Amino acid sequence: MSLPEHHKAARLHPAEKVIKVETLPIPSITHPDDAIVKIKLSGLCGSDLHAYRGHEELHDVVITGHEFVGEVVALGSAFQKGATERPPLYSTLKLGDKVVSPFTSSCGECQSCRIGFTSRCAHQLLFGSEKLPGGQAQYVRVPKAGGTLFVVGSESANSSLSSFSDTSLLLLADILPTGCFAALQTVQHPKILAPLTGMRYPLASISILPGQGELHSVMDDPSWPKVLDEDRHLTIALIGLGPVGICALVSLLDLLSSLKARFRLVAIDLVESRKLKAEAVFNNLPPEARGNGLGEFVVASPDEAKDIVKSWTDGAGCNAVMEIVGNNPALALAYDLIRPFGVIVSAGVHQAPPVPLTGRQLYNKNVALEFGRCPVRTMFPMAVDLLRRRQDIFGEVGTAVGLIDSVVSLDEAPEYYRKFDKGECGKVIFDPWK
Amino acid sequence: MSLPEHHKAARLHPAEKVIKVETLPIPSITHPDDAIVKIKLSGLCGSDLHAYRGHEELHDVVITGHEFVGEVVALGSAFQKGATERPPLYSTLKLGDKVVSPFTSSCGECQSCRIGFTSRCAHQLLFGSEKLPGGQAQYVRVPKAGGTLFVVGSESANSSLSSFSDTSLLLLADILPTGCFAALQTVQHPKILAPLTGMRYPLASISILPGQGELHSVMDDPSWPKVLDEDRHLTIALIGLGPVGICALVSLLDLLSSLKARFRLVAIDLVESRKLKAEAVFNNLPPEARGNGLGEFVVASPDEAKDIVKSWTDGAGCNAVMEIVGNNPALALAYDLIRPFGVIVSAGVHQAPPVPLTGRQLYNKNVALEFGRCPVRTMFPMAVDLLRRRQDIFGEVGTAVGLIDSVVSLDEAPEYYRKFDKGECGKVIFDPWK
Repeated sequence: MSLPEHHKAARLHPAEKVIKVETLPIPSITHPDDAIVKIKLSGLCGSDLHAYRGHEELHDVVITGHEFVGEVVALGSAFQKGATERPPLYSTLKLGDKVVSPFTSSCGECQSCRIGFTSRCAHQLLFGSEKLPGGQAQYVRVPKAGGTLFVVGSESANSSLSSFSDTSLLLLADILPTGCFAALQTVQHPKILAPLTGMRYPLASISILPGQGELHSVMDDPSWPKVLDEDRHLTIALIGLGPVGICALVSLLDLLSSLKARFRLVAIDLVESRKLKAEAVFNNLPPEARGNGLGEFVVASPDEAKDIVKSWTDGAGCNAVMEIVGNNPALALAYDLIRPFGVIVSAGVHQAPPVPLTGRQLYNKNVALEFGRCPVRTMFPMAVDLLRRRQDIFGEVGTAVGLIDSVVSLDEAPEYYRKFDKGECGKVIFDPWK
Repeated sequence: MSLPEHHKAARLHPAEKVIKVETLPIPSITHPDDAIVKIKLSGLCGSDLHAYRGHEELHDVVITGHEFVGEVVALGSAFQKGATERPPLYSTLKLGDKVVSPFTSSCGECQSCRIGFTSRCAHQLLFGSEKLPGGQAQYVRVPKAGGTLFVVGSESANSSLSSFSDTSLLLLADILPTGCFAALQTVQHPKILAPLTGMRYPLASISILPGQGELHSVMDDPSWPKVLDEDRHLTIALIGLGPVGICALVSLLDLLSSLKARFRLVAIDLVESRKLKAEAVFNNLPPEARGNGLGEFVVASPDEAKDIVKSWTDGAGCNAVMEIVGNNPALALAYDLIRPFGVIVSAGVHQAPPVPLTGRQLYNKNVALEFGRCPVRTMFPMAVDLLRRRQDIFGEVGTAVGLIDSVVSLDEAPEYYRKFDKGECGKVIFDPWK
C-alpha cells in the first residue's frame, strides 16, 4: 500500500495554548513492532483538556488525541517475520485489519501486561503526549502494535464487532472501559462486598481461613446479630457526568442490576446539560438495566447531593463514591460524602496539588481509595459486552440519550476544543477525511 | 459483689505531658448497657504515645490505656432483664465472666456493627480518651458491654480460650487483631489477588460477569500471554516493627504460607532492637509458618529497603506495602516502595498533617490505599486462631521471640511510658494489683 507523504493533524501549541490543524509529514515505522494506522475517526476527550488548559507541563508542540479507530496500513518487520518467540499478538495482526487502540500503548509481553495491568506496561506511552504523537490526525504510529491494538474487524476472520458503527467502536479507546473499570472497582471492593452480599465483613474471597468456601465471612459468631435486608441498601455517589461519567453510570447500573442490588444513586455535576443527559440516559434504560425497580436515582449539584445523602442515610453517608473528575474539589467532596468503611474510586486524571486530605481524616473514616489509569486493553471484553447491549446510548449520534453529540471535521478541532472546554458541547468525534 | 470505693489509675496530664498514678473513685454503672470490669492486666500500646507526646489535642486529664483483660464485676439493668428485643449478646454476658475488650466500644446493634465495621459503630468510643476513661487502672466502665466485650472464660460455659495466659489474651484487645487486619487487607486486595492466584487482573470475585465461576479473570483472551510463575512472586514491605508490626508480620507470613505463595518480604525499622526482634521471630517460626521455603525475608533500614526492593524487582517496586507507623515519612516511604497497581495498607493512627502525596502521584502508580482502625470485635476469630497456633510468640514474656517484654506494676507506668517513648523497651503490660 503506498501512503501519501503528508497528512493533516491537530497540534497543541502549548506556549500559545491553541490548537492548530496543520499539514505534516506522515508518521513512519521506526521500530519492528510499530504499525501505522490510517485513522477513520478520532475522539475529543475530557483529559485532552488538561494539556489544553496548561495544567500539564508541555514544552513541545504535540499532535493531540488518544482515542482512535482506523485501519492498519503498515506494519514493522516483527509482524512479517512471525517470530515464534513473540506472543501470537505479534503474528496475527494484519494489514487491512480494522483496529481500535487503547489510549496508552502496551507491549503485551512484560510482567505488567501479563498480569493485566496494561496501562502501566513497562513500555507504555500515552498517545497525544510529547513522547508519542496522538490520533487527532489522518495517520498515527502505534508502538508495540501487537500488544496495543485490538482488532475489531478483519478480512481474514469474522469479528462479532464488525456490525458496530465506527463511532461506537471509538468509545472503546478510553471512556467506556474507563467507566467500566471504575464501576467494577467500586462494586468489587472488599468493603462493598459485605453490604452487597449480606455476608459480614471481612469476607475471605480465597480459601485461606477457617470456614472455607469461596466467599465467606471471617467472623462466624452465632450470637452476633445478622446483617439485615436494610443493611444491603447501597448508597452511591457519582461525581462528574461528562462522557466518562455517563459510561461509569451505565456500567454501574448494569452491574448493580445483574446483582439484584438495592441502591440509591446520586449523580453529581455543576453543569445543567450534563445532569439532563444523565437523567435521559437513566430514564431510557430498560428496567432490567437500571435496577429492576430496586434502585433510586437522582441528579444533583454538589451541595444538593450532600443533603440528599444525609437524608437518605440518616447522616451516615455513601458506601461508595466514584470520582470521575480528577481534581481536588471533587476529591474533597468524595470524602465529605463517604461513610466510614466506604470506598472512593477515583477515575479522574489528577494533577500536581497534594491530596486535600489528612491522614487523620482517612483513618477516621477507614477510607479505601483506588486511583489510576484504566488498563483499557484488559477491560475490552467487559466494555465490548456492555457496548453490544447499549447501542442506543453508545451507538447513536446527536440523540438525547446518545453519548456522542456530533461527528465533525478535524478542521473544526480548534473550535470544538474551545466549546468542550466551556462545557458548550458533549462528546465530539473528529473525522479527519471530512 | 461489693466493690471498693477507690482504685488506682494512671492518668495523663496533658498540660504537663506527664503520667501520674493516682487514687480515684472507682467507676460506676451510668447506663443500663454498662459493665464494670475489674482489670487483671492492661497494656501499653504505641498509640498511647500519640497523646503522651502531645500529638492529640487533649484538654482534660484522662485515665489512659485501651487494652485490658479482666472480670465482669457489675452489670447494668439491661443484662438483668434479659430483654428479648436485644441481641443475645445482652443476655449472655454474666458476672464473673473473664473478658477482653476491643480498644473501642461497639454496640453490636447498629448497622455498622451488623455489617462487621465495629470500629466505626455509631456509638463507638475509644478507651483512654476524653470521652471514655481507659484501662490502665484497677477498674473500668465498659459502655455497650454486650456488643463490646468478648468472653474468654466463663463459669457457666467452657471456653476454648480458658487455657491461654492472661498476657497472651491481652494481645487480643488491639495489636494482634490489628496486625491480622492489615495482613488480611493486603493479601485479599483485588490488585493482589491477580499476582497471588495467577489469574489475570481484574478478577470477578462474584458472579456478575460473563465467564462466571466464583473467582475468575474478566479478560479471557486466548491470544494474550499467560501469567507466568515468575509473575506470582510477591514482593512486600512492612514498615514499622513495633509490637503491631510484629503481629502483622506473623499474620502475613501465616496467610502467605497457607496460600503457598512465593514472596520476598523486607521488614523495615530505624530501631536496631526492633529489627532483631523481627528476625528472631521469623527464624523461630516453624517452616510451614514462614513460607515453606518459598519465602525470602530480610530486615532493613528505610534506605537499605529501597535498594533491596530495587534489586529484587529490577526497579519495579513492591506489590504491597504495610505501613504500621502512622506518620507521613512512613507513608511517603510506602509510596516510594510501591509499584504500579500496588496496594498500601496503612494500619497506623495518623495525625493532622495532609497526606504527603499528590493526586498525580497516586494516579501515576494506580495506587490503592486502605486506611483506618481495625474492627477488633470482628477480627477476634481470626486473631484467636493465630494466637492459638503461635503461643511461643504471643504467650511468653521476656524471651527473644516473645512479643511481650515484661509485666510490671502499674505504679511504674510513668517510667515505662518514658522508656517506651524512647524505644528503650518493647511491649509492656501493667498489673494494677502488683
